[in-house]
Amino acid sequence: MEKVIAINSGSSSLKFKLFMMPTEEVIASGKIERIGIQDSNIDIKYGLGRRYQATMEIANYKIAVAILMEMLIKLEIIRDYMEIDGVGHRVVAGGEYFKQSVIVDDEVVAKIAKIADLAPLHNPANLIGIKAFREALPYACSVAVFDTSFHQTMPAVNYVYSTPYEWYEKLGIRRYGAHGTSHRYVIKEAANLLNRPLEKLKLISCHLGAGASICAVKNGKSYNTSMGFTPLAGVTMATRSGDIDVSAVAYAMNQLNITSINDILDILNKKSGLLGISGVSSDSRDVSVAAKNGNERAQLAMDIFERTVLDYIGQYIAEMGGVDGIIFTAGIGENSSSVRARIVEKLAYMGIELDVQENNKRGINNIISTPNSNVTVMRVMTDEELMIARDVVNLKKQQ
Amino acid sequence: MEKVIAINSGSSSLKFKLFMMPTEEVIASGKIERIGIQDSNIDIKYGLGRRYQATMEIANYKIAVAILMEMLIKLEIIRDYMEIDGVGHRVVAGGEYFKQSVIVDDEVVAKIAKIADLAPLHNPANLIGIKAFREALPYACSVAVFDTSFHQTMPAVNYVYSTPYEWYEKLGIRRYGAHGTSHRYVIKEAANLLNRPLEKLKLISCHLGAGASICAVKNGKSYNTSMGFTPLAGVTMATRSGDIDVSAVAYAMNQLNITSINDILDILNKKSGLLGISGVSSDSRDVSVAAKNGNERAQLAMDIFERTVLDYIGQYIAEMGGVDGIIFTAGIGENSSSVRARIVEKLAYMGIELDVQENNKRGINNIISTPNSNVTVMRVMTDEELMIARDVVNLKKQQ
Repeated sequence: MEKVIAINSGSSSLKFKLFMMPTEEVIASGKIERIGIQDSNIDIKYGLGRRYQATMEIANYKIAVAILMEMLIKLEIIRDYMEIDGVGHRVVAGGEYFKQSVIVDDEVVAKIAKIADLAPLHNPANLIGIKAFREALPYACSVAVFDTSFHQTMPAVNYVYSTPYEWYEKLGIRRYGAHGTSHRYVIKEAANLLNRPLEKLKLISCHLGAGASICAVKNGKSYNTSMGFTPLAGVTMATRSGDIDVSAVAYAMNQLNITSINDILDILNKKSGLLGISGVSSDSRDVSVAAKNGNERAQLAMDIFERTVLDYIGQYIAEMGGVDGIIFTAGIGENSSSVRARIVEKLAYMGIELDVQENNKRGINNIISTPNSNVTVMRVMTDEELMIARDVVNLKKQQ
Repeated sequence: MEKVIAINSGSSSLKFKLFMMPTEEVIASGKIERIGIQDSNIDIKYGLGRRYQATMEIANYKIAVAILMEMLIKLEIIRDYMEIDGVGHRVVAGGEYFKQSVIVDDEVVAKIAKIADLAPLHNPANLIGIKAFREALPYACSVAVFDTSFHQTMPAVNYVYSTPYEWYEKLGIRRYGAHGTSHRYVIKEAANLLNRPLEKLKLISCHLGAGASICAVKNGKSYNTSMGFTPLAGVTMATRSGDIDVSAVAYAMNQLNITSINDILDILNKKSGLLGISGVSSDSRDVSVAAKNGNERAQLAMDIFERTVLDYIGQYIAEMGGVDGIIFTAGIGENSSSVRARIVEKLAYMGIELDVQENNKRGINNIISTPNSNVTVMRVMTDEELMIARDVVNLKKQQ
């Protein structure tokens, strides 16, 4: 038995989940927010429904890690730092360097730093987290798990853009995708539900949360995915635009006298998507309620979101020449029976029929298509932290 | 019987086709190029294989029209200007004003001028053409036929982008599409081939030329289309990028020190697509030959082009909940049996089977799927000029 902690470091936040492995029991989870900002918060859940919350000053990430470790001991979650055998870090961008999770050494740190401009908001924060934990827990196995690495199996026909080839060769501009850890987790659960080997399946994984991406998975490997060079592209999201004609963006810049491309990216990342269309909220639950209450723009926002998800499903069915299973996961995918229902109903042409009763169940992994369906549709609860912890255990074994 | 001329005016060119209607016989066709540039060319085909070619100075569009009319008389194609009963003009952008072709009056001219910034390279040139012909042939019925108007039947769920809604409301930013005249023409021919009423068909029209767009046609109406706010979006084209993550464009700008969004649009419009990927040529025939000779980037370019077409076919099958017929048209769609074959073979999951013998025939409208296929695939020769001439005749009748 060993204890493994999964870490997600943001620019001013640290989220963690501590697992007992290989039993996969969650010993504790929580977050520290507003690191380096006034009134930092710490919030730890542990034991059977116990919770510790406090507000204090946490000047930087290094101090945040020290305080977290101290609290884990004070709350008697662990007795000693040495008990933590492995630390797995979520890293947003792995570029073409990282085709799978890796044990962190100085070379890995250098490479992650080198590709920081592929994810300027995330990779530097992820690196700070990696460095702080390597210092605090020098004996623990440190592992980097990349959002992009699962998609490194995509063939060039799916990742090369139709721009000058030099953009790819010299600048590394290509489709990288994201949510790889989630897609990787749910396809295994789906194969279990289907009781068939992952290596023989054509799957489409729909990770629908505030960020959303669709992934075509052929024989267990990512074949294509809707996010692009960055997580801006693909389907409509909470505040992100997804795909849009670049000329439309240029036209908006000219008309609105916006001269900086970064300013317009800010609008496309933070003020678009469900929020932009509806004007109501970035939260699909709020938008759905507004739509039910007759708000036409809210209804349009939901319709467009669902249409773009359907578009990618249709596209990937064509690319793979059919599909065995379709998975819904993440916040909306797991919890919105109505979103799932509306999308699945449009797939009747593939011989898919929704099992309304199964679709209305909550909080479980299950098959939500009828036994007569030619394609199995599933709802799977994703767990990226667990996937990270599993990667740590697997890499430690190989060490 | 009446004579109708279809006009396509560019910034320095005038293309025409003169029809006898309603028999649809082509009396003459040709073009004037390099208008306003040294050594303007005039080229007229007429009669049974006759041709007139000359180089002269043509200072402006008004003079070009006068010379064209003079030559039509000199070559005894017409005896008098009055013989031309109607003039149909291709106009690239109709915005939301023009939901169908219209007889040109001063109000129409004003509206086309007003939306010129939706197609800054094309609409002003189209307008110069309209004005010159109205002056030269004041008695002829003048009709404007818009590339976009066919797509005005799209529902909002398909034309509204996931950007701030104000971009649509205040700036008119939305999907407009293009190639409407071609899609409109070929779907009628397809209904004839299918011997079924257009109003009861789900069709996907693939206009594959140097510019390329895919159109979902439900019950005779455009339901969705791959081109966007402008003809830059959608599938990979000769020199246009089609869809791409805006963040990738921003990253390229930053890395290449390009500060103007218009400069980057120039690259996306003129140096991308088949040309950009292959580095060989913008002409798919050259790229195909290079691919056959082992050029890997040329092969990749063709693969990506075909994949993006397949993507939209898959997407529109999903959106329409199935499809009755798929149409290939325009330069590549009509002439490349290998491109058609490779795309159709990937649609086996829809119960589509290619009829190799029919697919290898040339220069005819025909069904290229086997009789056993669940979906009928067709090759149709497009004729935008004829569609324009038909619109002129129909609108003249209603006058």
